[in-house]
Amino acid sequence: MTTVELGHRFGTALLRLLDGEGQPLAHRDVVVEQRTHAFSFGNIGFDLVAVANGRTESAGLADLWFGVFNTATLPFYWGQFEPEPGRPDTARLRRAAEWFTGHGCQVKGHPLLWHTLAPDWLRELPTDEVETRVRARIRREVAGLADVVPMWDAINEAVIMPVFRNEPHRNAITQLAWDRGRIATVRLAFEEARAANPAATLVLNDFDMSSAYECLIEGVLEAGIRVDALGLQSHMHQGYWGEERTLAVLDRFSRFGLPIHMTETTLLSGHLMPPEIEDLNDYQIPSWPSTPEGEERQADEIVRHYRTLLSHPAVQAITYWGLSDEGSWLGAPCGLVRTDGTPKPAYDALRELVKEQWWLAPTNLRTDDAGRVEVRGFLGDYGVHCAGRTASFTLAAPGEAQTTLRLDGQSAR
Amino acid sequence: MTTVELGHRFGTALLRLLDGEGQPLAHRDVVVEQRTHAFSFGNIGFDLVAVANGRTESAGLADLWFGVFNTATLPFYWGQFEPEPGRPDTARLRRAAEWFTGHGCQVKGHPLLWHTLAPDWLRELPTDEVETRVRARIRREVAGLADVVPMWDAINEAVIMPVFRNEPHRNAITQLAWDRGRIATVRLAFEEARAANPAATLVLNDFDMSSAYECLIEGVLEAGIRVDALGLQSHMHQGYWGEERTLAVLDRFSRFGLPIHMTETTLLSGHLMPPEIEDLNDYQIPSWPSTPEGEERQADEIVRHYRTLLSHPAVQAITYWGLSDEGSWLGAPCGLVRTDGTPKPAYDALRELVKEQWWLAPTNLRTDDAGRVEVRGFLGDYGVHCAGRTASFTLAAPGEAQTTLRLDGQSAR
Repeated sequence: MTTVELGHRFGTALLRLLDGEGQPLAHRDVVVEQRTHAFSFGNIGFDLVAVANGRTESAGLADLWFGVFNTATLPFYWGQFEPEPGRPDTARLRRAAEWFTGHGCQVKGHPLLWHTLAPDWLRELPTDEVETRVRARIRREVAGLADVVPMWDAINEAVIMPVFRNEPHRNAITQLAWDRGRIATVRLAFEEARAANPAATLVLNDFDMSSAYECLIEGVLEAGIRVDALGLQSHMHQGYWGEERTLAVLDRFSRFGLPIHMTETTLLSGHLMPPEIEDLNDYQIPSWPSTPEGEERQADEIVRHYRTLLSHPAVQAITYWGLSDEGSWLGAPCGLVRTDGTPKPAYDALRELVKEQWWLAPTNLRTDDAGRVEVRGFLGDYGVHCAGRTASFTLAAPGEAQTTLRLDGQSAR
Repeated sequence: MTTVELGHRFGTALLRLLDGEGQPLAHRDVVVEQRTHAFSFGNIGFDLVAVANGRTESAGLADLWFGVFNTATLPFYWGQFEPEPGRPDTARLRRAAEWFTGHGCQVKGHPLLWHTLAPDWLRELPTDEVETRVRARIRREVAGLADVVPMWDAINEAVIMPVFRNEPHRNAITQLAWDRGRIATVRLAFEEARAANPAATLVLNDFDMSSAYECLIEGVLEAGIRVDALGLQSHMHQGYWGEERTLAVLDRFSRFGLPIHMTETTLLSGHLMPPEIEDLNDYQIPSWPSTPEGEERQADEIVRHYRTLLSHPAVQAITYWGLSDEGSWLGAPCGLVRTDGTPKPAYDALRELVKEQWWLAPTNLRTDDAGRVEVRGFLGDYGVHCAGRTASFTLAAPGEAQTTLRLDGQSAR
């Protein structure tokens, strides 16, 4: 395990605790505890949409999910979301988003525009009409769910979009991107989403870690398109990248001064996909088991990977791509939970990182003469209990901040 | 050999020939002959710089060069051109450019900005100063040689430029591109060159045929940078691309509506470089012979390649990268002439294409009652001889054009 610096993930609060009358709570016992992470530890919530809608039992999966994660990515693949024009699956997804929000999670929608899983009914339309439909669909989803889905992959895989060929019939989005160009297609997605919800966090997302994505980003930014975060997929079905490659990728993509979201992260607990496979979707096998050795490797790698990612100040979010192996992408054992519902070592290792190593458990402190106490912790929201009362505060940024809290439950400065 | 359509390379002139008094030259014998090609059949003229400067004998190489080619690329590699700051090699290159121009050729300079072969003396300078020097160097070359060098590779290999690592010490241009970004670096090269010679043809040149180059082009065009032609290198040291790949590349890069220059074309007449070599410069062997089988293959491939390229209307120029194997890049047998000065089969095959199949040799025709005669030929300049006099005309564009010529040597409409 490498040594990494996480100083930029920590903040220090110099709390001054006052009672209801504004008098210092001097020489008192205090308990401080972390409530949330500022960092976005995400996972897909696809499997829990039915649970959230009360259609199936979660069989413990929801507890495992909430045991680690605080950001849920929900599926808005257009072809599945709106298989018949005009009949979108909005109500079901809204309930799922509300359910996650109710559990204290942030919700992200994926993706607004993508060539794969585009509706077949788009295919026969002329490009102008496709563009009109794309714009309307983006507006509908982003505006209609603005209260519960504040973050979106605005466009997915724009680098390959106009030249994508790995499909029996050409989809309409590839044709659109070919006719209009990548940047124009990125622009229309961001433009519509931004107009529909100016407060949304809009992500440019890609799996292409080569210079092609760098060039696209440069062009998009030169074209004046406002991007809130760069999404980097990192499905590691062909093997863990390792620290060096991961840091080199972060170095290249942090150059643009934008936050980085590691949007689709997977590590396998079984055999790896052969390196000669170019499009991961082309590797289809009947059974892809999780193995004891693979599970140990996965646990080791997930810790190394998360440590490496958090060591880089530009990284703001990591989304792991799947909790259970049941129904996982490509049937790969990339989940953190086995098909029988038991957690793999990687689950425990990640939980230990996120909720123990990088988490301030309830901690006993004592105030000084002036009612002051110093708290250092991972950036996020905290509660402080003293003299039978509770207040909350936030470690919002690295460095020290002074905060005065009245323990009638309200904060003051 | 595939069948290709070259209709877009041909024009038809309906000539009406008049005598000095304006009377039709009816029922006369006429000889029409092609003088130049509109298409740019280029080669590097590096080996002939010394010949042009009267320092060595050409040993027949110049005759072989002019036997096929009409556009000479001359070397302006900054580190070699100006090894000491303030002492550029301008006079020698100017004489070479004048010599080629005097032989009826167009001259192109390569390259104005490139990370490889950048001067070592730039390395210690801060980025702002590097930018100032780059701008001054571009202005100096483009303005100073505007009368004899009307075409430039304004920037070479911008895709890899900011992330280039295959060198012992980081060069200053890579650092500049890293700090400023690719598009900003492309902009400064084009901006300075354009200002120095507004009439110049400025080429964006790259070896990267992947989506990365497409993305860069999109970004450059979105940023409003005026590019006159897209340069596509095609060093085929690892094997001939074949028709299918070549046409697919042209399809992708012609999408931007710009002329395409195939700027650095090579085909080997010896064994191929192993496919696992990523940077061709890494393959260094003591001897790389031209072989009889290799020469036959090269001749076959050069004909197929040039036919394929000319079949695509976007292609405006092809530059073969080297005439002789003597001193060739990487010592590869990519020349059209052996080290002993004898032409390989590929030379003869290319000459046969360019100066026979795609060339109107002196042709006997006869005018009608009205002095008219129809000429169909490859686009370019032509001479017409009749009644002891000569006039010239140009087939400038595909399709038919009517031209009235007075055979006192002046043309009229």
